[in-house]
Amino acid sequence: MENKKIRVAIAGYGNLGKGIESQLDKNPDMELICIFTRRDPSTLKIKSNVPVVSETEIELWKDKIDLVFLCGGSATDLPIQGPKFASIFNTIDSFDTHAKALEYSKTMEDASTPNDHIAMISIGWDPGLFSNMRLLFNSILPTSKTYTFWGTGVSQGHSDAIRRIDGVIDARQYTVPIEDSLNKIRNGQTSDFTKRQMHERICYVVAQENADKEKIESEIKNMPNYFDEYNTTVHFISQDELLKNHSKLPHGGFVIGVAETSKETNQVAEFSLKLDSNPEFTSSVLIAYGRATYRMWQDGYRGCKNFSDVAPKYLTTMNYTQIIESIL
Amino acid sequence: MENKKIRVAIAGYGNLGKGIESQLDKNPDMELICIFTRRDPSTLKIKSNVPVVSETEIELWKDKIDLVFLCGGSATDLPIQGPKFASIFNTIDSFDTHAKALEYSKTMEDASTPNDHIAMISIGWDPGLFSNMRLLFNSILPTSKTYTFWGTGVSQGHSDAIRRIDGVIDARQYTVPIEDSLNKIRNGQTSDFTKRQMHERICYVVAQENADKEKIESEIKNMPNYFDEYNTTVHFISQDELLKNHSKLPHGGFVIGVAETSKETNQVAEFSLKLDSNPEFTSSVLIAYGRATYRMWQDGYRGCKNFSDVAPKYLTTMNYTQIIESIL
Repeated sequence: MENKKIRVAIAGYGNLGKGIESQLDKNPDMELICIFTRRDPSTLKIKSNVPVVSETEIELWKDKIDLVFLCGGSATDLPIQGPKFASIFNTIDSFDTHAKALEYSKTMEDASTPNDHIAMISIGWDPGLFSNMRLLFNSILPTSKTYTFWGTGVSQGHSDAIRRIDGVIDARQYTVPIEDSLNKIRNGQTSDFTKRQMHERICYVVAQENADKEKIESEIKNMPNYFDEYNTTVHFISQDELLKNHSKLPHGGFVIGVAETSKETNQVAEFSLKLDSNPEFTSSVLIAYGRATYRMWQDGYRGCKNFSDVAPKYLTTMNYTQIIESIL
Repeated sequence: MENKKIRVAIAGYGNLGKGIESQLDKNPDMELICIFTRRDPSTLKIKSNVPVVSETEIELWKDKIDLVFLCGGSATDLPIQGPKFASIFNTIDSFDTHAKALEYSKTMEDASTPNDHIAMISIGWDPGLFSNMRLLFNSILPTSKTYTFWGTGVSQGHSDAIRRIDGVIDARQYTVPIEDSLNKIRNGQTSDFTKRQMHERICYVVAQENADKEKIESEIKNMPNYFDEYNTTVHFISQDELLKNHSKLPHGGFVIGVAETSKETNQVAEFSLKLDSNPEFTSSVLIAYGRATYRMWQDGYRGCKNFSDVAPKYLTTMNYTQIIESIL
């Protein structure tokens, strides 16, 4: 492998963009070249000593960058940001709107292939690592049933939903897996579990002084899709308490595959994550798969790819001999 | 993908070979063609309705088989069986002698490449799945420390070692991970653990009637490499009891990666297996990677490969759209 560093850029400077910036120094095979933003570059304060560049000027950076980490959100950012960047650069993103992933993969295929790039989509821990485990368990144990649990962790989507309720100033929602169901599966039970049996939701809410707390609590608990199918607990706390005790973004989860390979012979495989910082870990996953993206591009791969296209050897800086001697 | 079944053979009819035979019916994309043996074929009773073929006649089956599962042991079988088969067929094996893996990979490369085959080596759960996790954790969290625990499970090697002691009729050795150390690591502790701190060994021994049990127990506990660096417990039981309570071959283990991605921010990733039958699960892993081996061969790959060369998409019978829609 050549020793030239992989020249990377970050597009979007939210939680994920900042996370990637913070983790790049642990990956000496990469060099941050610039940060792209849709905002006025002069308004962006970044930690690194690299240029902040307006997204209107990305064409000018075509030959200076090997890979761009797309850090926009899946709902409105990536459907526009994705194809725009993929026609000019190799890209990697964390697109996570399940229902639109196939459509997005076609958009990214059309943007990347004719322009000789790879567009690696839907990378992170779920989708991403968890997808990898679901595929692995399903391939190895064809008769298995696979369960995914999330948490204990902060769900941004659910926290946002609470914040939109009248009288709410701020909120944090924790998704919590139900230990009892987890353990049943670990012991080989493969029945169906309802949403309520798999997760509960714990909410910390800062309400306006004169707000009707009973009404807020009821609105939360009955919110369709978000809360109504779960056991939900609501705690009202002060803004100070929320900032002090709930400002971190921990997360995690479990993928468990269970199969009976012969009568009364159960096989249980489990993958779990316990993350103090969701953005920093997601960034770390993107960086490793970003390395894979560029190295696969060097090996002649083109077009839209996902986790299932990536041979593990591409993720690491180790060579073949090192893998056999220190990992196998 | 074409609909023709993958024509497979099994070489060696011990625990692993029988396991593969038992799991093939869960994989309708494969068809068992024959079983190769070094013994006199007429002495082998197999479950399937396929020919049993002497290893002296493998050349005759060259064009009738797409892939051979090599089920010999690593110590003495595979170093001979491996290259012999890899020059004639695509092969997959579970070579697990760490210290000789690099040498074996070169032998298999030399046997497979000039003859236009793939030789997939060292597949199973460790090496194999656990190797995959160690590489994944190391790639995603470059500053991480990765720990591997085995058990609770029967170690054949340690059981054999006890059986070689004078006065011992039969024995079963369970390797047991130390829960306290596991939990320390899960909580982010990344200190070094001694062998004694990570595993203990529990032995069930059937002794001859007049045997000196104290002497046997002392010989076990002081056996270099196998037992002397661990806390070992020895239980003397009857042959009946051993057959009744210890005839299964359960196993399992844990790979845990721990990293601090920023000050006081720990990320913990864990992969674990709890297997009622080690041979049946190992077989299941070999079958999925066997599918990958043949499909990679169809895609033009040649030579010696290991887990790190296998993109997850090759393991599954699902197509690209199915992966995105039902797994991602």
